[in-house]
Amino acid sequence: MASPIEFWFDFSSPYSYLASERIEEIAARHGRTVAFKPTLLGVIFRTTGGVPLTELVPPKASYFAHDFERSARFAGVPYRHPSVFPISTVNAARAFLWLQSQDQALAVRFLHTAFRAYFSQDRNLSEPQALDALAAGIGADPVALARGIQEPAVKDRLKALVDESIARGVFGAPTIFVDGEMFWGHDRLPQVERWLATGPF
Amino acid sequence: MASPIEFWFDFSSPYSYLASERIEEIAARHGRTVAFKPTLLGVIFRTTGGVPLTELVPPKASYFAHDFERSARFAGVPYRHPSVFPISTVNAARAFLWLQSQDQALAVRFLHTAFRAYFSQDRNLSEPQALDALAAGIGADPVALARGIQEPAVKDRLKALVDESIARGVFGAPTIFVDGEMFWGHDRLPQVERWLATGPF
Repeated sequence: MASPIEFWFDFSSPYSYLASERIEEIAARHGRTVAFKPTLLGVIFRTTGGVPLTELVPPKASYFAHDFERSARFAGVPYRHPSVFPISTVNAARAFLWLQSQDQALAVRFLHTAFRAYFSQDRNLSEPQALDALAAGIGADPVALARGIQEPAVKDRLKALVDESIARGVFGAPTIFVDGEMFWGHDRLPQVERWLATGPF
Repeated sequence: MASPIEFWFDFSSPYSYLASERIEEIAARHGRTVAFKPTLLGVIFRTTGGVPLTELVPPKASYFAHDFERSARFAGVPYRHPSVFPISTVNAARAFLWLQSQDQALAVRFLHTAFRAYFSQDRNLSEPQALDALAAGIGADPVALARGIQEPAVKDRLKALVDESIARGVFGAPTIFVDGEMFWGHDRLPQVERWLATGPF
């Protein structure tokens, strides 16, 4: 069995959302699974001098705001730019990890639901009520989830993942590793597909 | 007749080189021509705070160095990263513009030859001898070219183009405009193709 594709993401990254809608189908077509790994761009940017795309100088910021929506239409994915952007995704990432420790499939359902809630329904994932509603929507217990994201093991797991992403050179999201080869950005999915189909090129 | 696709480039931009190898074929398939327009990233970056990709913090710089070559292989375009990078492209851009004032087809031949010389044969386009050799190779008169790039009209034309690119929000290269719609980057060629095929999406 070939190793899983690693999909590093941040819940506040538009291109992570777009890629998250396709990565499992791409993986499956090549006999692979996806290992979803949250990281925190806020922490990464402090080490790499990165800046959220909409906080760049005006011509870049407005280009990216436009590109998010055009790229979503190009990909056939619903998109409505969130009224609060970017947001803190610490709790959403911990929620994903806590769910993962309970039930892998449920965690993946949470991931997709959370991305869609933020990027197409303007639900601010940094607010506890939003996570409660998401939990309820996928059949998880909101009270258990709210407790779960405070568990030291969950906090440590997220910290370890962020550290790992930085150590491995991740500087933006999504970042996809296929057998150790790193691809940054939704727009590298065609190269990911080629790599899966042919091996190293 | 539909309006030409505008292709804004800098001779020191790897992704401009990659896109330059495909843009005319894409345009032709949709009944369009290409208007090649040089700009100067060095000037643009002073207004947008941009940085050459290989001068970013180490994890980004090494990712891009790798991505240039992988993207070239993906596109089937020969690539050898230049030993001097980036370079001043003022004279190469002026050479293109002077040739364009003489013979449009010759200028386009120069453009492709110059990009290939820099990005696959390690010829440093900032050196006068390199431009001489390129001119001779495409059947232009090196002496006339050397004189041409000093003409005030040519210098003014380049300055006007750089100013225009900045005024229109260009912050990197290649930047492609299709009927006013702006696309940044070699990796947006699939969206350019869709736009040409379907109109606005």
